[in-house]
Amino acid sequence: MFGSPAVLDIFSDAGTVQRMLAVEAALARAEAQCGVIPAAAATVITEICRDVGAIDRDALAQAAVGAGNLAIPFVKQLTAAVAARDADAARFVHWGATSQDIIDTALVLQLGDALRVLDTDLIHLGESCAALATAHRATPMVARTWLQHALPTTFGCKAAGWLDALRRDLARLDAARAQARALQFGGAAGTLASLGDAAPGVAAAMARELGLVAPVLPWHAHRDRMVEVATTLGMLTGTLGKMARDISLLMQTEVAEVAEPAGPGRGGSSTMPHKRNPVGCAAVLTASVRVPPLVATMLSGMVQEHERALGGWQAEWDTLPQLVTLAAGALRQMDEVVAGLQVDAARMRANLDLTNGLILGEAAMLELGGRIGRLQAHHLVERASRRAVADGTSLREALARTLQQDPAHAGLLDDATLDRLANPANYAGQSSAFADAAVQAWQSALAGRAAR
Amino acid sequence: MFGSPAVLDIFSDAGTVQRMLAVEAALARAEAQCGVIPAAAATVITEICRDVGAIDRDALAQAAVGAGNLAIPFVKQLTAAVAARDADAARFVHWGATSQDIIDTALVLQLGDALRVLDTDLIHLGESCAALATAHRATPMVARTWLQHALPTTFGCKAAGWLDALRRDLARLDAARAQARALQFGGAAGTLASLGDAAPGVAAAMARELGLVAPVLPWHAHRDRMVEVATTLGMLTGTLGKMARDISLLMQTEVAEVAEPAGPGRGGSSTMPHKRNPVGCAAVLTASVRVPPLVATMLSGMVQEHERALGGWQAEWDTLPQLVTLAAGALRQMDEVVAGLQVDAARMRANLDLTNGLILGEAAMLELGGRIGRLQAHHLVERASRRAVADGTSLREALARTLQQDPAHAGLLDDATLDRLANPANYAGQSSAFADAAVQAWQSALAGRAAR
Amino acid sequence: MFGSPAVLDIFSDAGTVQRMLAVEAALARAEAQCGVIPAAAATVITEICRDVGAIDRDALAQAAVGAGNLAIPFVKQLTAAVAARDADAARFVHWGATSQDIIDTALVLQLGDALRVLDTDLIHLGESCAALATAHRATPMVARTWLQHALPTTFGCKAAGWLDALRRDLARLDAARAQARALQFGGAAGTLASLGDAAPGVAAAMARELGLVAPVLPWHAHRDRMVEVATTLGMLTGTLGKMARDISLLMQTEVAEVAEPAGPGRGGSSTMPHKRNPVGCAAVLTASVRVPPLVATMLSGMVQEHERALGGWQAEWDTLPQLVTLAAGALRQMDEVVAGLQVDAARMRANLDLTNGLILGEAAMLELGGRIGRLQAHHLVERASRRAVADGTSLREALARTLQQDPAHAGLLDDATLDRLANPANYAGQSSAFADAAVQAWQSALAGRAAR
Amino acid sequence: MFGSPAVLDIFSDAGTVQRMLAVEAALARAEAQCGVIPAAAATVITEICRDVGAIDRDALAQAAVGAGNLAIPFVKQLTAAVAARDADAARFVHWGATSQDIIDTALVLQLGDALRVLDTDLIHLGESCAALATAHRATPMVARTWLQHALPTTFGCKAAGWLDALRRDLARLDAARAQARALQFGGAAGTLASLGDAAPGVAAAMARELGLVAPVLPWHAHRDRMVEVATTLGMLTGTLGKMARDISLLMQTEVAEVAEPAGPGRGGSSTMPHKRNPVGCAAVLTASVRVPPLVATMLSGMVQEHERALGGWQAEWDTLPQLVTLAAGALRQMDEVVAGLQVDAARMRANLDLTNGLILGEAAMLELGGRIGRLQAHHLVERASRRAVADGTSLREALARTLQQDPAHAGLLDDATLDRLANPANYAGQSSAFADAAVQAWQSALAGRAAR
Repeated sequence: MFGSPAVLDIFSDAGTVQRMLAVEAALARAEAQCGVIPAAAATVITEICRDVGAIDRDALAQAAVGAGNLAIPFVKQLTAAVAARDADAARFVHWGATSQDIIDTALVLQLGDALRVLDTDLIHLGESCAALATAHRATPMVARTWLQHALPTTFGCKAAGWLDALRRDLARLDAARAQARALQFGGAAGTLASLGDAAPGVAAAMARELGLVAPVLPWHAHRDRMVEVATTLGMLTGTLGKMARDISLLMQTEVAEVAEPAGPGRGGSSTMPHKRNPVGCAAVLTASVRVPPLVATMLSGMVQEHERALGGWQAEWDTLPQLVTLAAGALRQMDEVVAGLQVDAARMRANLDLTNGLILGEAAMLELGGRIGRLQAHHLVERASRRAVADGTSLREALARTLQQDPAHAGLLDDATLDRLANPANYAGQSSAFADAAVQAWQSALAGRAAR
Repeated sequence: MFGSPAVLDIFSDAGTVQRMLAVEAALARAEAQCGVIPAAAATVITEICRDVGAIDRDALAQAAVGAGNLAIPFVKQLTAAVAARDADAARFVHWGATSQDIIDTALVLQLGDALRVLDTDLIHLGESCAALATAHRATPMVARTWLQHALPTTFGCKAAGWLDALRRDLARLDAARAQARALQFGGAAGTLASLGDAAPGVAAAMARELGLVAPVLPWHAHRDRMVEVATTLGMLTGTLGKMARDISLLMQTEVAEVAEPAGPGRGGSSTMPHKRNPVGCAAVLTASVRVPPLVATMLSGMVQEHERALGGWQAEWDTLPQLVTLAAGALRQMDEVVAGLQVDAARMRANLDLTNGLILGEAAMLELGGRIGRLQAHHLVERASRRAVADGTSLREALARTLQQDPAHAGLLDDATLDRLANPANYAGQSSAFADAAVQAWQSALAGRAAR
Repeated sequence: MFGSPAVLDIFSDAGTVQRMLAVEAALARAEAQCGVIPAAAATVITEICRDVGAIDRDALAQAAVGAGNLAIPFVKQLTAAVAARDADAARFVHWGATSQDIIDTALVLQLGDALRVLDTDLIHLGESCAALATAHRATPMVARTWLQHALPTTFGCKAAGWLDALRRDLARLDAARAQARALQFGGAAGTLASLGDAAPGVAAAMARELGLVAPVLPWHAHRDRMVEVATTLGMLTGTLGKMARDISLLMQTEVAEVAEPAGPGRGGSSTMPHKRNPVGCAAVLTASVRVPPLVATMLSGMVQEHERALGGWQAEWDTLPQLVTLAAGALRQMDEVVAGLQVDAARMRANLDLTNGLILGEAAMLELGGRIGRLQAHHLVERASRRAVADGTSLREALARTLQQDPAHAGLLDDATLDRLANPANYAGQSSAFADAAVQAWQSALAGRAAR
Repeated sequence: MFGSPAVLDIFSDAGTVQRMLAVEAALARAEAQCGVIPAAAATVITEICRDVGAIDRDALAQAAVGAGNLAIPFVKQLTAAVAARDADAARFVHWGATSQDIIDTALVLQLGDALRVLDTDLIHLGESCAALATAHRATPMVARTWLQHALPTTFGCKAAGWLDALRRDLARLDAARAQARALQFGGAAGTLASLGDAAPGVAAAMARELGLVAPVLPWHAHRDRMVEVATTLGMLTGTLGKMARDISLLMQTEVAEVAEPAGPGRGGSSTMPHKRNPVGCAAVLTASVRVPPLVATMLSGMVQEHERALGGWQAEWDTLPQLVTLAAGALRQMDEVVAGLQVDAARMRANLDLTNGLILGEAAMLELGGRIGRLQAHHLVERASRRAVADGTSLREALARTLQQDPAHAGLLDDATLDRLANPANYAGQSSAFADAAVQAWQSALAGRAAR
């Protein structure tokens, strides 16, 4: 649910078949260029491969169950389709290749397309976070540790934390995409023996045709390129999950500092108008429960036997598309959530007062510490804090009274100072500076990419 | 078991405490440089922190159980140790920092040191693989798919596959190390409010003191830097596991093409001298069962609550050191295995003949295909193959007889051609070229690093 | 691929909708029985719910993406379908229930049906293993530790190990099935407030209607019942994976002691007739890579928030069906593999001799130990073993010569004794007895179930 | 951190060695009873094995790294220790056994002891939950779905959900304990050939000596018994994690309905007296992040090779103790948390009013539905709810006004009815009954166990 339509489409049956056809067509053209097969055959094969309808996908799925892999019945169907047009050309379909070459290279094409979608969505989400970080650079809110109120921060600083993580995710996506652009073409055992001396030329031409890179050698039994896509999206999903956790906690009825954008089918309820279900966050959190074990599957699958694995490779087939789809869906959801996030700065401010100023004890201690030493200051603030709790008054008041009643400290802090200390906005430290810095780092990163 | 002593040492109790002390010392010096605490205090703190014995590690472990984190009792002990020397200096221990700052930054130091060890071991292993790839670039062996004999390849080509994966692992290690060099310093809620305007200066100085990078903003609740170390080592362990799977399969009593180096306590048995247990491979395979789920733990832990997590952060504490230790141990084991690997080229050659030449059917088909068309060739070879199985003869013989008995094809292949086809070394395709290419890519990568 | 058609059908879209309809119908009938809704309405609802075509599954899937759950658009469609027949009855569709009640209870029905299929297949597989254990109770083969020849055993003993594990899996399946038969019915927050005092009666009647058990209280946010199905199938998949590992290793070209049944699309190759790909084993091993992380997902998902989770519950939706489907497919594959397993006892016997009798060193040591003490015996056998390796002779011969050349021991073992020692069938220990015992335990277990 | 001292002790180095000694002693006695070794030797061996100090644990750990398993150097040390007393007896140490027999059976003893501790703690925790369920059977609180206020429930009902899950966990623990009580004794290859005809007798006697069950056949390569312990504790940890999530959410500064017991080192802060960190819950949540992947490791490890695995078995060695230790620590923490849980019923009541009665819309709809039909009622309540939100008034007031202004419905609900509807305690459905039922089921379960 809540997937990215573009990415779902890429990994749909049609999307897969379309890319398998593209690989077969590129193979034929590359072989024709190198004089391995007749140019006329390549032309016919390419033409047939342009129409995804050339393959009966239901029959294919049916046959794959028996064959144990998609490529065997696929090649059979494709050969028949080519033969129907030109019997001679049909003899050159899939020439010199093995099933895994087609399956893996089609996957590489799918990943390339999917990562492009993710890239766009990630930048859009980052821009939304940057906008929040800027707009709320100085909007005070409470920082929570252990789910307890701790100290003041700003909402911009929180958004900056998200943003800076997304910036690192973006860089990792770039690296993974570069890594995963490699053609897989090795023939039955990874030696390309079936193509004799023409092998290197064909491989190079095929990579060129597909916009891929020709790797140092076939990688069929070494899966780290695919796994790196998985781990990269695993980390991205982790970042999104952290954001979703934060936002869903802030949306609780009792907290109510932010809300997901409203909209049809977006968690509202006609009879419970107070309810604003964090449906986008739930979708993201679902992904963040499901993705890490799928990454483990990909990693476990790397332990492959010799030149073709028993289980390790096949375990990727459903796992990697699922993982990409989940990550892409989570990204899209979070993108919508953040783009339309409703921020209630007044409620943030109000919640800061829930502890009657107790979260400002550190500020008071520092102020006093500069005057009477850290230890003394600590004792005073501790006493005042206990008193505030006992009397149900604010820390400001309790502190004022505590100082007053102590001859040694009476008048130590005047009203203006106490007022300043009691304002959480005055103890947000580097929050605004951090928000600014994250925005700037994000913009530099984008500029750096644009310059490449 | 079978760990890397250097890495075990880094993550030992002493190794951890030593780096926590280094962080506190750097903090004090940085604060002195910025005028936040007296220079004299920083001097005393630094001096005390030089001696790992300043901390009673048993008492620390005991107390950590109660406190729920290592840093709280650590700071208590350190403060006492400093106070014993200079009561005034003790007031400035841990000034403005929070527990997580110390724990995270000490971890960053540990990871830096551990990754340096891994780097050295990985390069050494790569060099051994490169040597194998070169020495055996043309040593014929059977390629196995589905654990069945498929086609000829060379042992150098297999080693080249390992090598090229290690080259990618090395590049990923570089990226992860760069990413994980970031100081964590944020104070109680990540705003550094406790340091007022001095905060940015102190953070920069502290990073400088520790040889780390000052990040855009504190990353306490965004764990991707730590997780990237985990995923990177997960992929490395996967590569090592694939190598261990290959080698242990090749060591089987029935296959016996390679053997782990012999040595005391290395899998030999006085009364079963035929037994050469793949103990190094077993250690690596153990790591490759254990590491992927630990990566999943790290990824799951990323979903953290607000400014300090309930569970997600704490889940890293034992997990990441274990994961690094397992990967480092696996790397060291594989390094020893490959450095001393005994390769039995004669047995490889002998095993190629186990199927009486049937693995050369593709070669025969291509040869014949060029003369009588692919389809005809296919039928002929199929018939000859069945005949070879039925008669228990070689494919060469069966093919010769099949051709002879068919008036249309008698004399199609002369004896010299049949002999050439029957030699698996003649059908290893690009194996040697791939071996050479992988070695060259490895050397370029090393040269590129050296140039940086 | 290679799934169980029956189980795939259960978890197909139609299978899911059919069971959701069954739940709504049972709810209506139960409420009619308790006087909560009119009997006429229940009759109409039941009738409509009989036809899975009442729901447009494509539209449902589409709408579910927006709604974030299947039940909301499902109820909408069902209500419309009922309204088309009887507007009044439509008012009582889904009365007092919540989405999760329908989704969870439909899942419970699916699991019940799937576990029944698994039960049948598991018993069938057990019977095949029992047959192997009996037929080969005394068929000698080599036991392998660390993938090295160790000592003799029998193939029946190996099959007995599989069988006994399956017996335990069967018992666990029984327990999980009993546990997972619980109705989920709690209304919007698990209190059944919407049904007032009629609630207990309706719940009891609904359970009765569905052949389920009414639990102590609704379990919507406590998922252990569902997770127990997952862990149980996780262990079953582990058992099957161990069998597949054993069989695929035994099928290696160099070992060739067993083979999967041949058949169209079952791993044969027309031009590589020597190849017998372990396709069934590969499917099982694929499942055993994929299932353990899916179990982890189910376990992680248990940490749910209050009365309805954000992510933990939703993470089950695809995961559990996938997991059941993978386990069921693996079981069916292994069932076919074992039912038609080709056992080459002659090859097993031949492989026992690969080490020239060295695997019988322990037997010789025990024999000699009884005569000259264990220590002396150990030295003698060690010397003889080394000699056998050095000279390329059999241990029998080397031992005879070693004894002869040693005046103290000449004539210690006569030829008949040496012959006896040299026969691996004589040193298979309790192998046959273990085979018999496992078969008996299996039969008792089946008898015990039949008696229940 | 926060472990169970008793369980940590069981899995400490000393705890492990002590149980390995117990296994060797039982083996010796069993063999003496069956006349396999001299009674005098068994007596000496038993005596030496009584003293855990007979083994130098540091030297053992050191040697294990080289040997790749703990038992080989352990037997060496033990033999030396026995020899120092009686050279003759030393010849019979470890007679006929293999390393795995000792390691596995010692683990079985550890698990037995650990599960006993868990059993006690689980019952204690259950009793605490039962007490809460009883005491708060009718204490109204808000039920939260999607982290949003939904409907009223009672705190006793929530505690009852926890309790009922614990009841199922207890039953699963019983099953796992019974399953895991099996002796592992198979000799070098699982055939017990080294003991000749005495084998069955020795195995039976050894099981008796250790209070274990003699299994149908050795299970060294079939690990489901160990894995079932892991999955069972995985589910228990899941239950505990759900409880910890609930409690930590209820402890949030903004919610404050319950609190962990206060105490030294239990999450308090002298200067932030408002802070009550959920430290126990954090420890439990840490376990619930870490345990599921460890369960996956155990499941993955089941795919073992032949008669001794390469990696799958060894992966258990650290994993299972860690998993048991984490679960036991989490159980103990939750036990302390629940035993001392501070429940603020007034705050629960106050939080029910946070939405101004909107959570009672369903109650109003049902009341009205009985009078004017469900559809009409729905419209009225929807209008009133929107009005309440718009005007900032309560639903009661908005509903009263809405009815008044509508001539058709004026006077439909009198003040008493409106008051009744406005009291959340009147719309808690079966909450109290569910609380009672869970307590009763728990008590029956305990009684059933006591009767066994």
